[in-house]
Amino acid sequence: MKLTGHLFIGAENAEGTEGTMKALNPATNQLIEPDFALGGAAEVDRAATLADQAFDDYSHTSLARRAAFLESIADNLDAVRTELAARAALETGLPEAQLEGEAAKAATQFRQFAEVVRKGRFLQLAVDPAQPDRQPRPRMDHRLQKIAIGPVAIFGASNFPIAYSVAGGDTASALAAGATVILKAHNAHPGASEIQARAIRKAVQDYGLPEGVFSMVRGSGNAIGEALVDHPKVQAVTFTGSERGGMALYRRAQLRPDPIPVFTEMTSINPTFVLPEAQATRGAQIGDGFVERMLVNVGQACLKPALLIAIEGPGFKALRAAMVKRVAEAPARAMLAPGIHASYLNGLVALEDAGAQRLAEGSAASGSFDGQSALLEVDGQRFLADTALAQEVFGPAALLVKVRDEAEMLAVARSLKGQLSAAMHLEEGDTPLAHRLLPILERRTGRIVVNAFAHPQEVTFATVHGGPFPATSDSRFTSVGMTSIERFLRPVAYQGFPDALLPEPLRHGNPLGLPRSVDGQ
Amino acid sequence: MKLTGHLFIGAENAEGTEGTMKALNPATNQLIEPDFALGGAAEVDRAATLADQAFDDYSHTSLARRAAFLESIADNLDAVRTELAARAALETGLPEAQLEGEAAKAATQFRQFAEVVRKGRFLQLAVDPAQPDRQPRPRMDHRLQKIAIGPVAIFGASNFPIAYSVAGGDTASALAAGATVILKAHNAHPGASEIQARAIRKAVQDYGLPEGVFSMVRGSGNAIGEALVDHPKVQAVTFTGSERGGMALYRRAQLRPDPIPVFTEMTSINPTFVLPEAQATRGAQIGDGFVERMLVNVGQACLKPALLIAIEGPGFKALRAAMVKRVAEAPARAMLAPGIHASYLNGLVALEDAGAQRLAEGSAASGSFDGQSALLEVDGQRFLADTALAQEVFGPAALLVKVRDEAEMLAVARSLKGQLSAAMHLEEGDTPLAHRLLPILERRTGRIVVNAFAHPQEVTFATVHGGPFPATSDSRFTSVGMTSIERFLRPVAYQGFPDALLPEPLRHGNPLGLPRSVDGQ
Repeated sequence: MKLTGHLFIGAENAEGTEGTMKALNPATNQLIEPDFALGGAAEVDRAATLADQAFDDYSHTSLARRAAFLESIADNLDAVRTELAARAALETGLPEAQLEGEAAKAATQFRQFAEVVRKGRFLQLAVDPAQPDRQPRPRMDHRLQKIAIGPVAIFGASNFPIAYSVAGGDTASALAAGATVILKAHNAHPGASEIQARAIRKAVQDYGLPEGVFSMVRGSGNAIGEALVDHPKVQAVTFTGSERGGMALYRRAQLRPDPIPVFTEMTSINPTFVLPEAQATRGAQIGDGFVERMLVNVGQACLKPALLIAIEGPGFKALRAAMVKRVAEAPARAMLAPGIHASYLNGLVALEDAGAQRLAEGSAASGSFDGQSALLEVDGQRFLADTALAQEVFGPAALLVKVRDEAEMLAVARSLKGQLSAAMHLEEGDTPLAHRLLPILERRTGRIVVNAFAHPQEVTFATVHGGPFPATSDSRFTSVGMTSIERFLRPVAYQGFPDALLPEPLRHGNPLGLPRSVDGQ
Repeated sequence: MKLTGHLFIGAENAEGTEGTMKALNPATNQLIEPDFALGGAAEVDRAATLADQAFDDYSHTSLARRAAFLESIADNLDAVRTELAARAALETGLPEAQLEGEAAKAATQFRQFAEVVRKGRFLQLAVDPAQPDRQPRPRMDHRLQKIAIGPVAIFGASNFPIAYSVAGGDTASALAAGATVILKAHNAHPGASEIQARAIRKAVQDYGLPEGVFSMVRGSGNAIGEALVDHPKVQAVTFTGSERGGMALYRRAQLRPDPIPVFTEMTSINPTFVLPEAQATRGAQIGDGFVERMLVNVGQACLKPALLIAIEGPGFKALRAAMVKRVAEAPARAMLAPGIHASYLNGLVALEDAGAQRLAEGSAASGSFDGQSALLEVDGQRFLADTALAQEVFGPAALLVKVRDEAEMLAVARSLKGQLSAAMHLEEGDTPLAHRLLPILERRTGRIVVNAFAHPQEVTFATVHGGPFPATSDSRFTSVGMTSIERFLRPVAYQGFPDALLPEPLRHGNPLGLPRSVDGQ
């Protein structure tokens, strides 16, 4: 596929009004062809207007047609998997094999959401029949379904250039909900973005859907993002990235004349608690596994375990030694982008300034933007004294927090802000301590994992990729998993409707055979 | 019951640090005994600290115990129904019989939420079992439940002094979710608030729950509300009232270092569309029924139909004449409070300034704060030219919008902001027009009603009392009905947990017999 570098304003290949850019290969520090168009408020306005025009039509597509459309996107992604992974590898420095897996996963997400659409549970259909004889007054017939909230602006993430980017879970769940999408492509992988956008646009065209169902814009600086969250036709926003970027968009959207929901997934240090019996029996294994997981994607993952809390006692030395060894053996690898590399170095300095000691380093960097792995250590009292030590450092670094006893472990847990995840390593004898830790973690995290490092992002019904602030901007939602669709849905009640006027899923006799509750049953 | 005028800070009867106030009888313009304490940031801090301390315990109560606690509140409300209605009538000018009904409804809401708690569907339990043999890597066991978001601040409404106030649906749904509650009582009915708070506190004590499960504060001016939305322990806010008040709280909460969800239910003119065949066959009946409904609660209702859109054609004169007649016959009745009465008068002036003509008036006011009913008229072109005509006037007034044809009716519909509800009056021949109107209304309202005026606030599973901005601050939620509990819930996933550590509803074998999805089924 030849990349043209256009913006995709509906069906139009647009040149953009704000100049061009090139992709950078972070492993070689070389620019890559071709030029990619940059847009601004003008392109956002056209895309949002099309998205609004397409909304009534697309949001009323039948479940069967919408599901088939999602599957068609999946098929189109499969068809370009090899070239998509190759281009993404050039643009991100990530291994091509890993990116092929990511592309496969992205296609799977569209297929999973097609199933969600077909099954229709997300409509949360509820029927409370009329009670004409009720005293003191009759009850009308009440019927409820969920409908899409409106056009959605989605900000592609940098770190997973496919599964959290243009054809990522946000797009899949928004389209599944019946929302139209304006995708803001991340500038770190414009070519991979274009390949994905073509896969989606082809499906829009093949299914004869209105062109405004999907657009992709791109711009430099903050202007394009601001234009998106400000646009009156945009009714919801999702973002995956830094706390600073996410909160700027969030607060801006809340200052609109009509505030709109903005779901931002931002920052998490994913604390890992090593309980005493587990540490005594397998401290080295835990330390080694932790670092292995920490290094995945050069530490550039939302679920990267960045904090390990362990009690200075039996097994601690073995645990620490294993961590040191594994970090020391880690090769330096290219980070995603120069800005991310610079932030990583600054983040390490900030941890050291706050009193963390460097325990180990990986191989030295050779490329300009290689991330050298690092392990730092601090004691519990110091950690509790300075919140700078609980700041995320995006990249291949972790902090070992050495606590004196169980009480100090619990105090560290209580000191933490909202997290996407937390982990506990435990054996049976650790159960009483785990029971004390659990409610602390429940209040602070969206997922809690026992005895695992490799908890890759499963996309299932019970998946939660969310959590209290600052992990996300709204702990009531998840950005991954089948229930992520709820971010884009709102309920509408129909009272006293004649059958002919009711939406098909709500009609008498349930002609579509969808799951519906009747009086809550 | 002797009213003491205290603030309820957990179990403590607090004097307050900001002076006292008395209730006003708006029908007589007389102050009523006793003095009621006023508090500020100090009282909010104590209540929020207690709410936070109580949270872990209360949010982990068994479903059976929590349901029984809610039923106990209902019983306590029933036991004071007569004196509650009598005091509320004195403080609001509303009829005592109506308020007895409201008290009964408030008790019913607690009983309905007790059932919701017992059935456990709100937990949205999901189990995605481990797949140890899956390729290329095994899947861990994933389990999801929803838990309460944390301590909730609830602002009591003025216009329904029981069912939307201290013991209203917000409190019932928050307590059902497992959240602890800090209730900010409305100053327009402090005595009714105290009676309700006592009913709740008695249940807290009878069930041996931590005192911080429920507190009630009160203050003058904005300071107390600001202290509530600012308090770091408060994790969600609900508010029912004016757009100005609601948006001030909303925006303030979004500027916290950690923004929190604020659900505000604010303003709606609940447009009623009279379709041609319905107008031709029963115009007078529709006009009469509309005004009857408009006058309920002296026009002080969220669902008051304030706008009637009708085509100048067959039946129009009869419709208009019936509206005029009914308004002209309406007695003036005391409004809830001097401020609401003043706003009502200002609102009418604003409609006239924007070009609306006064068609009819009810009997003249005798009491100082009596609301004189009013019917105004404007043509469609004028309505479309000035958004001031679409502003809510809280009180016994309505605006008749006379449109030229179907196209202008649709244009008026498209011009509307978000609404709690809309109504269509139609006959079979109106179906094609209704089909064109429906998607416009779906995008703008939370509920759509056919051929009804009296759509009292049913509290069922299919109830939606919500809608796009400015009807509410988040169209994805409802403040009435069984799903209003979702405002206070967030998902948590448990991965790879041993059975002994899992929350009971998620344990293997489903020992509580609760509804759970398994792999989405």
